[in-house]
Amino acid sequence: MAASNKTGGVDVSITTNDLRQAHVLIRDGIHETAVMQSASLNQMTGASLFFKCEHLQKTGSFKARGALNAVRRLDAQQASKGVATHSSGNHGAALARAAALQGIVAYIVVPTNAPAVKKANIALHGAQIIECESTLAAREAALADVVERTGANYIPPYDDARIIAGQGTAALELIDAVAGLDAMVVPVGGGGLLAGSLIASAGQMQVFGAEPEMADDAYRSFTTGVRVTRHTPKTMADGLRTTLGEHNFVIIREQCQGILLVSEAEIGAAMLLVWSRLKQLIEPSSAVTLAAVLRYPEHFQQKRVGLILTGGNVSVTDFSPTP
Amino acid sequence: MAASNKTGGVDVSITTNDLRQAHVLIRDGIHETAVMQSASLNQMTGASLFFKCEHLQKTGSFKARGALNAVRRLDAQQASKGVATHSSGNHGAALARAAALQGIVAYIVVPTNAPAVKKANIALHGAQIIECESTLAAREAALADVVERTGANYIPPYDDARIIAGQGTAALELIDAVAGLDAMVVPVGGGGLLAGSLIASAGQMQVFGAEPEMADDAYRSFTTGVRVTRHTPKTMADGLRTTLGEHNFVIIREQCQGILLVSEAEIGAAMLLVWSRLKQLIEPSSAVTLAAVLRYPEHFQQKRVGLILTGGNVSVTDFSPTP
Repeated sequence: MAASNKTGGVDVSITTNDLRQAHVLIRDGIHETAVMQSASLNQMTGASLFFKCEHLQKTGSFKARGALNAVRRLDAQQASKGVATHSSGNHGAALARAAALQGIVAYIVVPTNAPAVKKANIALHGAQIIECESTLAAREAALADVVERTGANYIPPYDDARIIAGQGTAALELIDAVAGLDAMVVPVGGGGLLAGSLIASAGQMQVFGAEPEMADDAYRSFTTGVRVTRHTPKTMADGLRTTLGEHNFVIIREQCQGILLVSEAEIGAAMLLVWSRLKQLIEPSSAVTLAAVLRYPEHFQQKRVGLILTGGNVSVTDFSPTP
Repeated sequence: MAASNKTGGVDVSITTNDLRQAHVLIRDGIHETAVMQSASLNQMTGASLFFKCEHLQKTGSFKARGALNAVRRLDAQQASKGVATHSSGNHGAALARAAALQGIVAYIVVPTNAPAVKKANIALHGAQIIECESTLAAREAALADVVERTGANYIPPYDDARIIAGQGTAALELIDAVAGLDAMVVPVGGGGLLAGSLIASAGQMQVFGAEPEMADDAYRSFTTGVRVTRHTPKTMADGLRTTLGEHNFVIIREQCQGILLVSEAEIGAAMLLVWSRLKQLIEPSSAVTLAAVLRYPEHFQQKRVGLILTGGNVSVTDFSPTP
């Protein structure tokens, strides 16, 4: 199924075929991650849940997919200049790693207040880190400066056809691995993964976005039809604080079944359930999907439901085991 | 390879064939758990590490294997009386679940001070819980009482040929899954899993036990040749506080390459590495294996090394995510 072409002036003509091509292009550089089930979570929800484990992906999140697809779509001339982005999180690490894999340079603009664990994850892959103030204006200025200075190719974190197609390969693998899914639940921040999952679903199942109440721009954009571009999210789900992208909004508005809001308490409880039942260390952003299944049983009971666990980059050093 | 028969009056004639038979007997009631790898942990250790994920086993630990093997080896007459044990940990849950699977009753003697998470795991499977004081004498008295009253079959946690054969199937699966292992590292508490792993290895690789310095009875027994039967362990690795079993000691003394001691700090650091790199929520007892590989590189560098992650039953509710 193709998203409509050039709706509202935005080119969103991405097809399942684009996702298949992206999958072929990146396959040797990513993990085909496992799909897990839990008898006790199935019993608790009255559904058959299939968890796609993208926290086990290279760099610890699905972002490895889109970044590698974008980097590998550059021609040799472009690639020789390297790539650049601004990111305080998983996209920065994913782009750094994709560049390292291709043997090209990556410039990552990182706000000074970014979590140490995420900065370390970026540095691990040998990227050049450019620190700046944490405001969006400062980040964009620093990025513009490095792009002008080096000629590096800007690779946006989510609002980009190459990124959407790359992220969608996670849903593609889930659909290929689990026959007869009735529904899929996908976290929505910038919307790249949700848009890609909608295209992957090809209209064969209901696809829901799951979003924190404390970062509800996708919900408000979806219900009003007007994309929210400014908000000040305070959610613990740090991967979902970004604002819905323009391309992604067009695809989501046309094809998504709905955006399901969950509270911070529900996110925390669902994260602990995944930790204790699946024994998988996911970050809070990954937990919004199970939180949504628990809060809105009317959509999921007796159904076969795919949930994407998006990442596992959470700082664990504060934890003390209780003997 | 068979362990010697009746060494020192103890019958330890368990063969790899017994393990194969146990595997056939329990296979439909357990998970064949995944084997995971991590590029960054390989880089850090200079070895190729293969983690056998028994924390993803039914009931959250490898104990599900031995318990099911023991229960399924009862004849109909015996089974009709049910099973009993005393346990504050994973064996209790494993036996409760094995009994439930066979439709027989389980009596689990639990000290009043057992962690709530472990008590809940036992109750989950419908066992009859008998609370008692936490001393060994009180536990044994309560167990003797319930066995006399009900005729239930006592299923010991580790010092038992059926248990050893069942636990050894975890190592058997690991060896079948990973060609050309040079070494295996296995946590040692009561020694059932280590004894079973030694039999599974059939002398084809080096097998090490890994043990907390704070619970070093297996190390002292192994090095002196005299089994330590009294000690007061204080380790955070609560699954390894038990004392080495008599049968297990005979097998370990004859076949084990060595017992590697690790400190509490090393256990904690290794646990956080598994959490942050593998994204797997293991309990402290599982972390002694990686801790040993890090502390004793001379045994493992450039080798293909299998490590058994034994369980994931750790309380996570104290954790606060850092956004």
